[in-house]
Order: sequence, then C-alpha cells, then structure tokens
Amino acid sequence: MAVTYARGFRAGTAACGIKAFTAGASAIPSGQKDDLCVIHSAYPCDTGGVFTTNKVKSASVVIDQLHLQRNRVQALTINSGNANACTGAQGFRDALLMAKLSADRLDLDPDQVLVSSTGVIGRFLPMGAIKSGIAEACGKLSDAKGVDAARAIMTTDTVPKTAQLDVEIGGARVRVGGMCKGSGMIHPNMATMLAYITTDAAVEPGLMSTFVKSIADRSFNQVTVDGDSSTNDSFLVLANGAAGNEPIKAGSAEAEELRAAMEQVARDLSRAIARDGEGATKLITVKVEDALSDNDARTAARAVASSSLVKTAVHGGDPNWGRIVCALGYSGAELALDRLHLTVGGLVVFERGAGVDVDLGAVRRAFEQSEIEIVATLGLGKGRAESWGCDLSEEYVRINADYTT
Amino acid sequence: MAVTYARGFRAGTAACGIKAFTAGASAIPSGQKDDLCVIHSAYPCDTGGVFTTNKVKSASVVIDQLHLQRNRVQALTINSGNANACTGAQGFRDALLMAKLSADRLDLDPDQVLVSSTGVIGRFLPMGAIKSGIAEACGKLSDAKGVDAARAIMTTDTVPKTAQLDVEIGGARVRVGGMCKGSGMIHPNMATMLAYITTDAAVEPGLMSTFVKSIADRSFNQVTVDGDSSTNDSFLVLANGAAGNEPIKAGSAEAEELRAAMEQVARDLSRAIARDGEGATKLITVKVEDALSDNDARTAARAVASSSLVKTAVHGGDPNWGRIVCALGYSGAELALDRLHLTVGGLVVFERGAGVDVDLGAVRRAFEQSEIEIVATLGLGKGRAESWGCDLSEEYVRINADYTT
Repeated sequence: MAVTYARGFRAGTAACGIKAFTAGASAIPSGQKDDLCVIHSAYPCDTGGVFTTNKVKSASVVIDQLHLQRNRVQALTINSGNANACTGAQGFRDALLMAKLSADRLDLDPDQVLVSSTGVIGRFLPMGAIKSGIAEACGKLSDAKGVDAARAIMTTDTVPKTAQLDVEIGGARVRVGGMCKGSGMIHPNMATMLAYITTDAAVEPGLMSTFVKSIADRSFNQVTVDGDSSTNDSFLVLANGAAGNEPIKAGSAEAEELRAAMEQVARDLSRAIARDGEGATKLITVKVEDALSDNDARTAARAVASSSLVKTAVHGGDPNWGRIVCALGYSGAELALDRLHLTVGGLVVFERGAGVDVDLGAVRRAFEQSEIEIVATLGLGKGRAESWGCDLSEEYVRINADYTT
Repeated sequence: MAVTYARGFRAGTAACGIKAFTAGASAIPSGQKDDLCVIHSAYPCDTGGVFTTNKVKSASVVIDQLHLQRNRVQALTINSGNANACTGAQGFRDALLMAKLSADRLDLDPDQVLVSSTGVIGRFLPMGAIKSGIAEACGKLSDAKGVDAARAIMTTDTVPKTAQLDVEIGGARVRVGGMCKGSGMIHPNMATMLAYITTDAAVEPGLMSTFVKSIADRSFNQVTVDGDSSTNDSFLVLANGAAGNEPIKAGSAEAEELRAAMEQVARDLSRAIARDGEGATKLITVKVEDALSDNDARTAARAVASSSLVKTAVHGGDPNWGRIVCALGYSGAELALDRLHLTVGGLVVFERGAGVDVDLGAVRRAFEQSEIEIVATLGLGKGRAESWGCDLSEEYVRINADYTT
C-alpha cells in the first residue's frame, strides 16, 4: 500500500516527540504519535522533484535540490512537528545530518538520501530525538508500513492520505503508489504540502525529472496556489526499476502510459488533500472546459475553487452563482460572458451572458451534497483543467452564506 | 462631515427596500434601512476614478468609465443591496436610467451623474423602488447628511466609514472629506469596496484623474489585493472649486499638498475598512521599510496583512513570527533573510537570518493589543509602504492559533 506498494520500497517509522521537544520539553511525553519515517528503495532510483517557489526555503528543500543533482537517491527521511525553516546555518547542518544519519544506517552515501520537514517555522530540529528516531525507523523497515509512513508525516491532517494503482506497460505489470500530507486548504499558501510517489517501473535516467512538473501542474498545483507556497512544499517522484521491464524511454508511448498512471495517483492524493481541508465538510471539484489554453483553464479553475465566497456559498447551500462568475472574472483567464456556460451539480445556472431562471431548490439541493461539481465551459478554445477545494464553515459562513437570502 | 464636509456638496438618502425587492418581495417591508444616496455638487467637478480590474465589470462601472470621459460630473447616485452585475443589456439600461432619473431631478445631463451599486450579483435592479428613492433623496439634499450617506451604502459593514480634514493651500482653507464601504476582509477580493472623496479645492481640469491611481495605491489597494477585485469596486475623487482658491496646477507644490491631504483621508478610510473586517477584533498595520522599491514594499506588506495564518496568530496571541517571514517570502518582493529585521509590537523577533530569543510573553502581550504593528525592514533599498488588515477568528483559529504551542 501507498509508497511501499511498488516493489522494492520499504518504510519504517518512529515516535520521537519532535513537536514536544521543539516546544521545549526535556523528555518525550508518553503516547506520542509517529513523527518520523524513512522510505528505502532496494535499488537507486531515477528521481524528480519540484519544490516551493517561496524565496524563503527550508533547509531540507535546499539540501534536496543539491542531492537530486547526482540522481542516485535511494532513501527519504521525513519528519513532522518542526519545519527546519528560517534556522540559518544550523538548519543546513541539521538537514545534512538527517541525511547522513540515515545514510549510515542504510549503507548509503548522504547524497542518496532526501530529507523533508514539516511543522513549526524558526525552531531548531531536536537532533537527539531525530537521531534515535532514524535508528529506530531504519531498524524496522517493512513493505507493510506504507500507511504508517503516511500517518507519520501528518500535522493538522485528520486522515493519512495514500493512493496506489497498477498498470501494464510494455508487457510488464508496473506499480505506482504515493502518500501526501497537507490540509490547510483555507489558505493553501501556508500549509506545507509534502507528496511522494514511487514506482517500480524501470526508466531511462532523467525521465522522472521530466515528469514531475507536468504531473504537479495537473494535480497538487490545482489544490495549492502557484507561487503562494510554504517554505517546505516538496513533491518527489521515484522510480526504482524493480518491475524488471525494459527501461522506458522519454517520448515513447510507454512513457506517456507511466506518466498518466503517476498523474492519476497524484490526482487521487490531491483530492484527498482537498477533502481533508481544515473544517471542510464537502469536496468541491471545479472543471473548466473550452478555455483559451490549458494554462488559462488551470488558472480559472483554481480561482473558483479557492474563492472563500464560493466556498461559503457551497457550505451554506446558497445558489449564489454570481460568486463563481466573479471568481472567473478576476482569475486572469480570458473570459467572454456571452459565451460562458456554467453548471452546478449538473444544473445550468448561467448561459448567454445572464443567469438562468432555474429551480433554486434544485440548485440548493445540489450544493448540499457531500461532493459538488462546478463546470464552467468558456467557449473560447480547447483548454481544460480541474481544481479541487473544500467548503468553508463557521463564523465566516455565518456572515456570508445567507447574503442573497 | 464626510462627503459633505467640503463646501458645495450635499447628500440625500432614502430607504427603498432594494435588498428585499431583489430577493422577490412585492412590497417594501417596514423598518428598512437607507439603501440609496445621492451626492450633489453645486458646481461641476474635476473627477477621477479607478475601478475593478475584474474582467466581469458591473454595469455601473462601465457607465461611470463612459461618463468620466466628459469630466463634468456633478452628482453621484449609489445603491446598496443589489450589485447590478452579470445582468446583461438590461443591467446597462438600468444603470443609465439611474443616472437619467437623478439628472432629471437635479437639472443635469445624464453624463453628469456617476452611479455605483453594491450587493448581490446577477439580479436585476428593482427600478420602481430605485426611481422613488432617487426622487426622495434628491428632495432632501442637505450638507448635514454626510454620515447618513455613508450609512446608506453599507452592506455587511457594521459601522459607517467617514473621514475629513482641512488644510491651508495657497492661502485658502481647503476641505477634504470622504466615505467608503467594504468589510469582507478575509478575502477582500470579493467584497465590493466603494470609496468617494470630495474636496472644495479649485483645480485645473484633469488633476483628479492624475491623483486617483497614486492615492489608491497607497490606501485602498493596500487593504484590497490588486487584481483580485469584485465586479463593482470603485474609487472616485471629486473637486468642485467651492473653496475659491487659485486653481491648482499639476506638478505644483500646492498639487502635492492637496494630493497628500486626499491621501490622508483615503488612508483613514482604508484603516476603517480593515478595522471593520468581518469577524475582526483588532487592526493589524504592516509597515515594510527599506524595500528595493515602493512597489516591492506594497507587495510585501499586503502579503503579510492578508495571510490567514498571520491573522490567526495575531488573533490567538501566538508569537509565530515564522508565518510573517513565510508571507514575505512568497509575496514576490525581493528578500534577503540575512538583512531582514522584523519587529512585532515594537519587539525585535527576527534579525540576521534567524529568530531572536525574545521574551515570548512580551511578544504575546503585544499581539493581544487591539491594534498591532508589524514592521519589516528589508535592508535592500528605500522602498516603503503600509498595509492594513485584521485578525481572523473562530474555527480556523481553533485549528491554527495553537499550532506552535
């Protein structure tokens, strides 16, 4: 399951009390949840990564960018509870030490280990606790610990987020699995998103780095707004070749099949993040079709899914389609009102430049489902995209949700 | 007071039940608040305006852009309760009719009247109610009705927002007054902001149009994020010459004095919007100094003031300066961590690339004041700016405010 679904990947976890030590505890409180995991591959991986665009990058992000250059990664070490960001030179030393401690335990070179951290900014990592945790996690690596690993990287997440599938490519059965964390969907800009996808496909070196950006653009970047990212956001894809297939070449049909399978896992994980948005009670899927370009479609879909007023309207069961049109309008995507066709839960609410006189009760019932789909057809080209968000509840809703009624 | 503080400006208001009629009422319910106002100037004004950058603009915005071209505006008619946006050809006819009905009552040409609307999107204006309201408001114009006018344009605002000052320019006493509405500060992108500043200064034709953008950049655009604006956002400045001074020429010292006075009123109104943010309990002022440029400073200040996690930290009294540094990092402004100096409520919390070991209790007390100032000195140039926001309360806070503790 999860990151250990693909053959040759194992995971181990440990409860180190990182959050407690970071806050000043002198001993690990009892009953701590797992907050560290190590993922190990039996073989060196072809690896690609995309990272935060924030000018302030955590030490782990900087170290990973360095280690990726050698492209022989064979392990990941991830902690929650402390972001190791804004920690100066000490932070870099600690991130490097995390890699080295893991490498020593796994008989690797330090640059074969990538590290990620998520949690509080501006505090030094409790390296004593992390050292013990790495030893413990490396000592109990297992291919049955995929979900445990997903649980160990959670912060405010309420559920572990995993996905996997298998697909036949070039006669071989290839497995793809993944995990992610992230749940601050009200303002995704600050909630660290960490995501990892592993596959046992054999690939030509460098293929993963060509995949990772295009997969992110169609998945994680549609739940977290581009350019508004935390200090630690990371998305890593690893292929270790354990499936034994003929190595997949860039540009081949097999490469596209593998990319599509990895994108599917990434999209499943993205939807899981949206569904677990802080305070969320329902998943919102926004599809934009016939946009001027895919990029325009992505921009427009994201604007609608992240509009607080759309989110409160969905929460309140308020058929206020004006808020959707307004978000499309300020998204920056090309828009011609007289060509716009808008449905909410399958009901047409806007076309030919004006609202449709629909049965408001039916629209309201559509908004009240646990999942709701908003489809905006722009009538301008062939661009299309999806974005995922969640509703917004409580006091902000009390002020906004009843605005039209 | 307010828009009637400058000589020659009068206001009248009426309760038309626009929100009730928009929602389908067949008669005006009793006890309705004023929802329409007319502002009249004794003389034609030099007028400037800036409007929403949303690709979907309300009919009133489009009509105003047209009427401003003649630059002989002498009245404003503003309604709350219905935005007249996404209303197609009918919406344009209604906005024009609002101007014409007002012009007929005031013996003006229709293009001497600007119109604004704020409220629900996608519903036709109840023109019968508006016609009666315009007649009533025009029938009781008075220079004592400035605050009443500010109250008539409120939607979710909890208090009317007005400001005024007088200043001696070139030997004449010049008055400047203003009013605004807007309170959806959690996501200012969707909460219509309407603002009006009047002055009795005599100016050369065209001066107001050169002022309006630079004033907005230093005031209202620092509470509402550029490019993320509603369908109706409007800011209008009018100068009617009633002070009798020598007309002020562009580029003169007097012009700068007048611009500064008008900017001061605009900044007072901006702070009033932030303070009245939905659910807000305190005002946050973010000052960015020594940025690479004023524009960089504005961008950085806005990012901090609008960060939900900074806002929840302020609400929760949580000294999580990491969130401030992170917002500066993703703002897009140039940033060098080792030059950054950051204070919260006068206490240094970050310098030389790392957090300062301050008395967390003192920081927490600073966060708990009803007004809090965050000052980020970037050490890169001479750019400076302020931005204003408010704290964020309730469930989102419950999840986020205790994150470091």
